Amino acid sequence: MPPETSPDANAAHLTRAAQRAASRGALAGALHGRRTDPRLGDWIEAARGADLDEAGRADLREAARSFAQSTRVPADLAEALAREASATHHLWAEARAADDPAPFLPALAGMVALRREESQALSGGEGDPYDALLDQYEPGASAARIDVVFARLRAGLAPLLDRRLGAPAAPPKPVGRVPTEAQLALARAAATACGYDWSAGRLDLAVHPFSSGGGRDVRITTRVSEADPMECLYSTLHETGHALYELGVDPALHARPAGGHASMGVHESQSRLWENHIGRSAAAAPFLHALAAEHLGDMGLDGSEAFHAAANALEPGFIRTAADEAQYDLHILMRFDLERALLSGDLAAADLPAAWDARFEADFGRRPPGAAQGCLQDVHWSEGLIGYFPTYTLGNMGAAALMARLRTDEPALDDALAAGDFMPVLDWLRPRVHAPGRIRAVPDLWRSVLGDVPDEKPLLAHLTAKFEALHGLS
Amino acid sequence: MPPETSPDANAAHLTRAAQRAASRGALAGALHGRRTDPRLGDWIEAARGADLDEAGRADLREAARSFAQSTRVPADLAEALAREASATHHLWAEARAADDPAPFLPALAGMVALRREESQALSGGEGDPYDALLDQYEPGASAARIDVVFARLRAGLAPLLDRRLGAPAAPPKPVGRVPTEAQLALARAAATACGYDWSAGRLDLAVHPFSSGGGRDVRITTRVSEADPMECLYSTLHETGHALYELGVDPALHARPAGGHASMGVHESQSRLWENHIGRSAAAAPFLHALAAEHLGDMGLDGSEAFHAAANALEPGFIRTAADEAQYDLHILMRFDLERALLSGDLAAADLPAAWDARFEADFGRRPPGAAQGCLQDVHWSEGLIGYFPTYTLGNMGAAALMARLRTDEPALDDALAAGDFMPVLDWLRPRVHAPGRIRAVPDLWRSVLGDVPDEKPLLAHLTAKFEALHGLS
Repeated sequence: MPPETSPDANAAHLTRAAQRAASRGALAGALHGRRTDPRLGDWIEAARGADLDEAGRADLREAARSFAQSTRVPADLAEALAREASATHHLWAEARAADDPAPFLPALAGMVALRREESQALSGGEGDPYDALLDQYEPGASAARIDVVFARLRAGLAPLLDRRLGAPAAPPKPVGRVPTEAQLALARAAATACGYDWSAGRLDLAVHPFSSGGGRDVRITTRVSEADPMECLYSTLHETGHALYELGVDPALHARPAGGHASMGVHESQSRLWENHIGRSAAAAPFLHALAAEHLGDMGLDGSEAFHAAANALEPGFIRTAADEAQYDLHILMRFDLERALLSGDLAAADLPAAWDARFEADFGRRPPGAAQGCLQDVHWSEGLIGYFPTYTLGNMGAAALMARLRTDEPALDDALAAGDFMPVLDWLRPRVHAPGRIRAVPDLWRSVLGDVPDEKPLLAHLTAKFEALHGLS
Repeated sequence: MPPETSPDANAAHLTRAAQRAASRGALAGALHGRRTDPRLGDWIEAARGADLDEAGRADLREAARSFAQSTRVPADLAEALAREASATHHLWAEARAADDPAPFLPALAGMVALRREESQALSGGEGDPYDALLDQYEPGASAARIDVVFARLRAGLAPLLDRRLGAPAAPPKPVGRVPTEAQLALARAAATACGYDWSAGRLDLAVHPFSSGGGRDVRITTRVSEADPMECLYSTLHETGHALYELGVDPALHARPAGGHASMGVHESQSRLWENHIGRSAAAAPFLHALAAEHLGDMGLDGSEAFHAAANALEPGFIRTAADEAQYDLHILMRFDLERALLSGDLAAADLPAAWDARFEADFGRRPPGAAQGCLQDVHWSEGLIGYFPTYTLGNMGAAALMARLRTDEPALDDALAAGDFMPVLDWLRPRVHAPGRIRAVPDLWRSVLGDVPDEKPLLAHLTAKFEALHGLS
C-alpha cells in the first residue's frame, strides 16, 4: 500500500528542503506511533512484577520513561517538531552563509514556541519549563542547580580570561601546510594510543566531526585543515573519547535500553577528558609531539614545550568550537542564559542578535563582526535543541573531576602519559564510567565514581593550574 | 521493550563487520515481516474490485507483485541474504585491497547458493533460475532473449574493437592538475546545462558516485581526480541523467508504487544517454569544451576536436567503470555469461578467477595483471547482485534507440547541442520516459516511445559511426 502523502508533498514546485521536512515529519509520526503503542504500556506494567536483576530493572526504568514521555506529547506536535526542525535548520544554513539572521528569526520563534508547547505537554506545567527539555539530554538535571554552579564557574573564569588576555607573548603556531593523508595517519596513531579498537570501528573524513554507532560498531570522523594540523589531531581525540565510551559499555547490555549512554553530559565528559586532559596535557606533550613530528614533520615547533603551548593557544575569536579551554565554558554559560530567556519568553527571537552581541561583549570584551560569528554560529537552536548546551559544560566539569580522582588513584600517571602509555586512563574509566552504560541514573553514576555530582571546582583548579604553568599567570 | 539480540551480537569480540552483518540481517527480517503482513494480501484483494484509474491500477499491480514475491521467500532466507551480503561484501573489500581472491571465494560460493535458493523459492523451480533474479532489476526480461541480443551485440563489437586497437594515433589527453573546486564548478555548470533543478537537489563528493532520492529531493555525487578532470565531468553527467529521470516522474505519482523507476535498465538508459550521447557527442563538444576551458583552463587540449577525442579516448585497461563506449558492453557480456554459469552451478566460485582471466583474454586480447583488476573489480557479486549486470547494456541499447528516435523528431538537435541548449533533449524525454514512472510495464513503456523493445542495432550503429568519425576506421 502506498503511504499517505500530503497535498504539499505532491506539489511539483516543492523544494528539496520542503520535501525533507515533510519526510522527517512523517517519520517522526511513525516513530511516535511505535513508541506510544498501548501494548508497550501493558508490557511495562506486566514486567513490574517480574524478578529482575539490576540491568533488567534499568531496562524497565528506561522503557517506562520513554513510553511515559512519548505518550505525553501529541502525535501532531511530535511531527511538527521534526518537520519544523528540518525546515528551520535549512533556513539557518542559508542565513549563516549570507551572514544575515533576518530570514531565520521568524522560523526560530516558531521553533521555540513548539518546544515551549512540548515542555508544557511533558511537565503538565509543573516546575521550570526548561527542565522538561534539559531532561531529554541530561536526565535528572535541573536548571536551578545548573544556574548556581554556572554562576560560580563564571565568577572563576572571568578573571582567568582577563589575566590571559593580558599575557605577554603570543604562543607558537604550526607553520606550513600538511597533506591530508599525513594528518590522517597521525590521527589513526593517536586514536590507537588511546586504545581505540579498529576491529570495531574506522576513521573517515566529514564536514563536522562526529562519532556514530554502538555495540561493536562505533565509528569516528574527523576533519582536516592543511594549514592547521592541530584541528584534525584534537578533533580525533575528542571523537575517540566518545567512541571509547560506547565501546566500553558491557556487551551484555548491547542493544538494550540499559546499554545506552548515561547522558550527554557523561558522554561529553569522556570526549573532553581525552581531548583536553590527556591530549592537551603537559604530561602527554612529549609523546604526542614526537608522534606528530613522525607523521607531519616539525611544523616549525621547536620541541614539545612549543607543541604544548601551540595546542593550548588562546585565540581571541568568536566561535565556540574553536575556543580554548579557558573560554569554552563562557560560550556555554551565555547560551544557557539566552536559551532559557528564549524559552520563557523574556527574550524574543527577533531580539536575539542584539542580546547575543551585548552579552558576548560583556563576557569576552569584544564584539562579533557579524551574525555568522555571533548568534548564527551554532546549529543547535535551528533544530530546536534547547537544553542541550549546558551538557557541554557539565561534561567539562565531569572530565576535570574524573581526572582529579584518577590522578589520586594513579600517582604515576604522568610518567605513563609521557611514555605514550594511555592504558591506565582507559583501564580506570572502563569499569567505573563506560561499562555501566545507563544502568544507573546519572547522579548515582557520578556518586559511585566520585562520591558526589561534579561541580565547578575541579574544572577551575585544572584551568588555573594549566594556564599558570603555561603563561606564568599569578 | 528491548529488541531480541542473538548471542553473537552480544559477544565482546565481535568485529564491526560482523555486527553490521547481524544488523542488516535483523533489518531485513523486520522488513520481510512488514512486506508479508497478511493484511496486505487482504487489502490487495479488496482493491481488485475498485474502480481505479491507470495510476491506481499500476499501484495495485506493483503492490501485488511486491507482496507475492516477498511471501514466496521465507523470512530466514531473506535475513540470511542480507546478513551474508554484508559479510561477503566486507571480505570482498579486503580481498580486493590485497589483490588476493582466495579468502573471498568460499563466501562468494555461499552467496551464490543463497541466491540459487531464493530463485527456487521465487519461481517454484519453473523456468530459467536466472530469470527470477533478473526480474528484480528488469521486470519482464528473460535470459533467453538477452542471450540472443547480446550474442548479436558481441558479434558487432568484436571487430569494432579489433579495428580500434589498430588505430594509429593515441588520442590527446588532458595535462596538468586541476583543483577540486574548479572541477566541481564545471560539474555544477554541466548539470545546470542539462536542466538539473538545484532547488530539488545538490552535488557532493563521494568515493563512488551515485544519485539518491526521489520526488523533489534527488541528489547527486561525483568524484574528482586532479590528474584527470574528465572523470568528474562525465561521472556528473551520468548521475545527472539518473537524477533527471527521478525528478521527471509525474508529481502525482510521488511516494506511490507507480511512481518508482520502470527498471534499472530504463534508469541506466537515462544516465548513459546524458553521459555518452550528449556529453561525449561531437555536436556538444564545442559547448562543453568552452565550458571546461572557462572553469579548468585549456588542459593542454587544442580546440574542441581534441576535447572530443580525449573524452572518447580508448584505454586498453581492465576496469569496466573506466572503459570507453566500445569496450564497456563487452565487459557486461562476459559478466552475464559468468554469473549465469555461477548460478547454474556450471562454474564453481573457486574457479572464477581462472574463468575470468581466460574470458577476458579471449574478448579483449590481454590478460588482467591480478584479481583486483580482474574478477574482484566489481562490488556486485559480493552482495549477491546476480542478474543486475545485463541492465547496464540494456540501458546502453535503450539510450541509443532513444537518441535515434529523438534525432528523427528533432532534426535541428545538433545545432542546439552545439549552442549548449540541451532543453530539447529533456523536453523530449520527460513526457515519454520520465513522467510515466512505473505506470507501464517496461516492454509497454519502450513500445509506447519506440514502437518496440530496443535491441543491439541502434547501439552498434551509434558506436560504428562515432568511432569511424573519430578515427577514420573503415
